[in-house]
Amino acid sequence: MNNFEFKNPTKIIFGEGQIAKLAENIPHGSKVLMAYGGGSIKKNGIYDQVIEATKSFEITEFGGIEPNPHFETLMKAVEIIREKDIDFILAVGGGSVIDGCKFLSAAVHYEGDEWELVEQMKARKQEKVVPFGTVLTLPATGSEMNSGAVVTKAATQQKRTFGGPQYFPQFSILDPAVVASLPKRQIANGIVDAFTHTMEQYLTYDHGAYLQDRIAESILHTLIEIAPKVMENPADKHLAGEFMWSATMALNGILRLGVPTDWATHMIAHELTALHGIDHARTLAIIAPNLYRKLKEDKIEKLVQYGRRIWGITEGSKEEIADKAIEKTVSFFHSLEIDTKLSEYAQNYEHTADEVFNRFKERNWMGLGERQKVGPQLAKEIVEMSY
Amino acid sequence: MNNFEFKNPTKIIFGEGQIAKLAENIPHGSKVLMAYGGGSIKKNGIYDQVIEATKSFEITEFGGIEPNPHFETLMKAVEIIREKDIDFILAVGGGSVIDGCKFLSAAVHYEGDEWELVEQMKARKQEKVVPFGTVLTLPATGSEMNSGAVVTKAATQQKRTFGGPQYFPQFSILDPAVVASLPKRQIANGIVDAFTHTMEQYLTYDHGAYLQDRIAESILHTLIEIAPKVMENPADKHLAGEFMWSATMALNGILRLGVPTDWATHMIAHELTALHGIDHARTLAIIAPNLYRKLKEDKIEKLVQYGRRIWGITEGSKEEIADKAIEKTVSFFHSLEIDTKLSEYAQNYEHTADEVFNRFKERNWMGLGERQKVGPQLAKEIVEMSY
Repeated sequence: MNNFEFKNPTKIIFGEGQIAKLAENIPHGSKVLMAYGGGSIKKNGIYDQVIEATKSFEITEFGGIEPNPHFETLMKAVEIIREKDIDFILAVGGGSVIDGCKFLSAAVHYEGDEWELVEQMKARKQEKVVPFGTVLTLPATGSEMNSGAVVTKAATQQKRTFGGPQYFPQFSILDPAVVASLPKRQIANGIVDAFTHTMEQYLTYDHGAYLQDRIAESILHTLIEIAPKVMENPADKHLAGEFMWSATMALNGILRLGVPTDWATHMIAHELTALHGIDHARTLAIIAPNLYRKLKEDKIEKLVQYGRRIWGITEGSKEEIADKAIEKTVSFFHSLEIDTKLSEYAQNYEHTADEVFNRFKERNWMGLGERQKVGPQLAKEIVEMSY
Repeated sequence: MNNFEFKNPTKIIFGEGQIAKLAENIPHGSKVLMAYGGGSIKKNGIYDQVIEATKSFEITEFGGIEPNPHFETLMKAVEIIREKDIDFILAVGGGSVIDGCKFLSAAVHYEGDEWELVEQMKARKQEKVVPFGTVLTLPATGSEMNSGAVVTKAATQQKRTFGGPQYFPQFSILDPAVVASLPKRQIANGIVDAFTHTMEQYLTYDHGAYLQDRIAESILHTLIEIAPKVMENPADKHLAGEFMWSATMALNGILRLGVPTDWATHMIAHELTALHGIDHARTLAIIAPNLYRKLKEDKIEKLVQYGRRIWGITEGSKEEIADKAIEKTVSFFHSLEIDTKLSEYAQNYEHTADEVFNRFKERNWMGLGERQKVGPQLAKEIVEMSY
């Protein structure tokens, strides 16, 4: 294992009915901004539970945070927090709402153009932040137990990541009952998101991290095992809980400890969302298999381990096992009714590879991935393979 | 999964040479008590590294904390901390030194007979504690990343556990290089300790916790895989790191989330240490297999899963698989040169079962274990099987 530092102070409150514990976890006397998305929480009862549990606090609501949250939308919330002297943020939603609230946390006390927090990485150095907690409504991104976030500037279609140890939620409430009311599309997205997060930290090169590899494999096995069942029966709270906890564990910092990580799939895929508005998880399903194909030689040892341990492939040469493992991955995505070609999502896609090339070049991304090899040209070729 | 809450704020600093980071992790200007054990750190260079790294602080040393740390010894350190107004404790040692420092943390500001902290569970309610960090010198107990501890009152041979969320270390430095200088006996003890910690949270009944089971199995697999190699070559820092991280992960709170736990092996085994002074890990190796045999019917589903997944046993009835799995466990302990019978450690052992019966009865321990079935009589029978 490589050297590492790890500290994750988020308190997880897991289980059915746990939303009632909000009041004891928000600091007494706080003025609270309750942030949420498109309003599905008003249909599935979560909104009512949150309002009931926080009635002893002064609450200001801010709804309408969109998927891939926009800087422009979030700045409206920043103004409200400043005007009303709000001192605690409660994110009620999935990764987009939570990521958005991490931006709010950073931006409220920032003196300057708030986009600098993201574009110039100023968020990491921002000392005065607004504390926040979350009620997770969609298992997928892991944002509920990590300190990273992604926001998009709609005006320029720039999708950017930021983070820092000050952006861990104070607490996150994980109630598996929320899965019951999710559209199948979002459940499938959540499974693919968690699966790909795991792969980004696992499918690199052989580095002899016995335990870290096996923990990653635990999450992959669990997701594969529960995926068809939870799609079929999202109201099964046991399965929903396994799904929820797997998604959290996939990106709470444990998998990355002491191991090389890739993340090139994510960086390419973010551009597909920015350019075509495709769901984040689906862009991962489009890019990941082709990135594995393109970098098969570099990743061969781990592809073989993945094929053997996860998919039980025992026959064939290393290359054949690797190929089969990639095909199994694609079939897994298809089994969740997730298409894996860009042309199945976008009509005018022919210039996408060139645009990704230009965007990588503009930002001087010459060496992403565990071997620092994925630059504009490789990204372009991977996108072309994904048409 | 059952409902749970989880928060673990300990910062882990892992890797070779990380002791040098002490100064940036101890609060500036602290008056520090440096606590350690029998002095092995003066031979293996750790003492010198710690002294070098903390030279900007006012340090008071307190050596001589024994294995299964004694209340009586620790109270001497409490007096020194009070006299010198020390405000930070640095534990340099294994689980005994770290557990001892958790007691110091609790006792310094306690007003009353300090044994009440342990015997009457007052530690959990103690608000004013002294912050502490650790430099781990012996992978085994997981105390470096949890908030529990065990101390012994020598006068009465009472070995007691206590804990509370205020007893997480502020930080723990895990340098795998420390394993190189450990006696084989201590490496073997550490492996068995971590293995049994995992089993206490895994080998219960089938509760459908896919992910939690698989993470526990990850640790068991890793320990089995590295055990002979790390015994053979403790200077291999890669193997030592896997061992160290496995021991930490085995008892940092993650395995217990949402699952039933047993811990009856530990509670019986503690009495063997109290009565006969046998190494903690060795008492676990004596008791665990017989507890599994005695409770085979209750644990059959998990014994079979354990046998199949960990030991690859595919043939036979459920009962045969369970029996073989227990035998494999015993063989694993023997492969580490750890005896598994009480008579191999103690001469006058014939009254042990009766004494354990009485001790369980005195403390009204009528229902330990995942089914709350292990009381004085079962404990007695398990100890008798262990002669």
